[in-house]
Amino acid sequence: MPTSETTVRVRYAETDAMQVVYYANYFVWFEVGRCDLLRSLGQTYRDLEATGLLLPVIEAHCDYRRSARYDDELTIQTTGTLLSPARVQFEYEVRLAADAVVAAVGRTVHAAVNRDGRPIRLPASVREVFA
Amino acid sequence: MPTSETTVRVRYAETDAMQVVYYANYFVWFEVGRCDLLRSLGQTYRDLEATGLLLPVIEAHCDYRRSARYDDELTIQTTGTLLSPARVQFEYEVRLAADAVVAAVGRTVHAAVNRDGRPIRLPASVREVFA
Amino acid sequence: MPTSETTVRVRYAETDAMQVVYYANYFVWFEVGRCDLLRSLGQTYRDLEATGLLLPVIEAHCDYRRSARYDDELTIQTTGTLLSPARVQFEYEVRLAADAVVAAVGRTVHAAVNRDGRPIRLPASVREVFA
Amino acid sequence: MPTSETTVRVRYAETDAMQVVYYANYFVWFEVGRCDLLRSLGQTYRDLEATGLLLPVIEAHCDYRRSARYDDELTIQTTGTLLSPARVQFEYEVRLAADAVVAAVGRTVHAAVNRDGRPIRLPASVREVFA
Repeated sequence: MPTSETTVRVRYAETDAMQVVYYANYFVWFEVGRCDLLRSLGQTYRDLEATGLLLPVIEAHCDYRRSARYDDELTIQTTGTLLSPARVQFEYEVRLAADAVVAAVGRTVHAAVNRDGRPIRLPASVREVFA
Repeated sequence: MPTSETTVRVRYAETDAMQVVYYANYFVWFEVGRCDLLRSLGQTYRDLEATGLLLPVIEAHCDYRRSARYDDELTIQTTGTLLSPARVQFEYEVRLAADAVVAAVGRTVHAAVNRDGRPIRLPASVREVFA
Repeated sequence: MPTSETTVRVRYAETDAMQVVYYANYFVWFEVGRCDLLRSLGQTYRDLEATGLLLPVIEAHCDYRRSARYDDELTIQTTGTLLSPARVQFEYEVRLAADAVVAAVGRTVHAAVNRDGRPIRLPASVREVFA
Repeated sequence: MPTSETTVRVRYAETDAMQVVYYANYFVWFEVGRCDLLRSLGQTYRDLEATGLLLPVIEAHCDYRRSARYDDELTIQTTGTLLSPARVQFEYEVRLAADAVVAAVGRTVHAAVNRDGRPIRLPASVREVFA
């Protein structure tokens, strides 16, 4: 199963008054993770969009296990799986780099659509790497 | 089951290059929804925090059904349920105000903890309204 | 000089580990303020965009005077001035609703451009209200 | 004058419906830039906070010259100058890595305060590097 690893450092902007990372920001890092996974497989999401393929999120989930704080380094391990010729799922594991403790795990499901929002098949190049 | 309704208007900041709302922002609106629900029940999350009770999110989920765009008015219907003496779940339904079409549905689960992050019981005032 | 007033309530998402509003978020509220000003004058920014007119920010400034905190109600007073036939400036004053203390003052300058990014004249309807 | 260079890649979350970076996000990158500058000088903002020193922004400014887009790599060059024993200014230049064109230039001014928000002197270690 194709996998990639991304490192991010928590920005002050991403923290909240509880002095930990605001929960919605994990979904932003998931985006960074899946785009890095695509890039590591030889295609960028930007290039896919340029061909007229969009991959909007149709489902998103996150389980929070340990708080992350300002300036923490985090590693995001991302894997991808084809759910159907028109759907792909990414799974994410976010760890604190300092001690490898899991901060959060999550997943997103994406539908392939064209610029008009109509469902289309994923290109063969994407289907093959995630099959 | 206690329920409240909140209205938000999509900010330009909340859109992305797909010209729709960026998916993580629904979780921000969920936060607005649950805080409004608490307020409508006579307590604010700010006041709960002042007593030393925090309600971090331990699980978050969203299903996306219809895109929302810049300047769209959205209504967020929020309900709350007690899962245990120390856990509460909120459920959200986001509709486009113009035609009442559902844009997204989601839920968040929260654990009651003190300032040191230790699990505590929810105060009776909260347990009673969500029981 | 055309003026409008907008109210926002500080979201948890907008706070940071200093337990006050993260500084960049004032610029998001400025956006809410200027769009409300346009709306109060009978046109929406969404409609302007639909005609092919974009108003990207070319300059932004903010002076921070008093911290705002989670759940604070804020009022944003916005005024607009025409700088040239192709440029408009908005000025903002953000006050804590509870005691009318000024939290921040700022301004943004916008250039009228078309979809290709080329400078164009503001439509007469906009020039007239801000002249 | 102490200087550092930071690279960021534009996240989809940071774009808006104009299909370019939303203007407020440059201030987030400025934060990344100044924290990297401090780190390169042997101290982290996190460590400064741990000693009870906070550096809230009291003034922020940005001039926008060229749009940045999703997936663009940007370099942020940051310099710091002591304005007084209790104030420091950072200046930023954001360039598109691909062609070194300047996307934006800006600055932020910070006041040294303690946990109660009272003005204090910057520690000697900070004053010396930015003098």
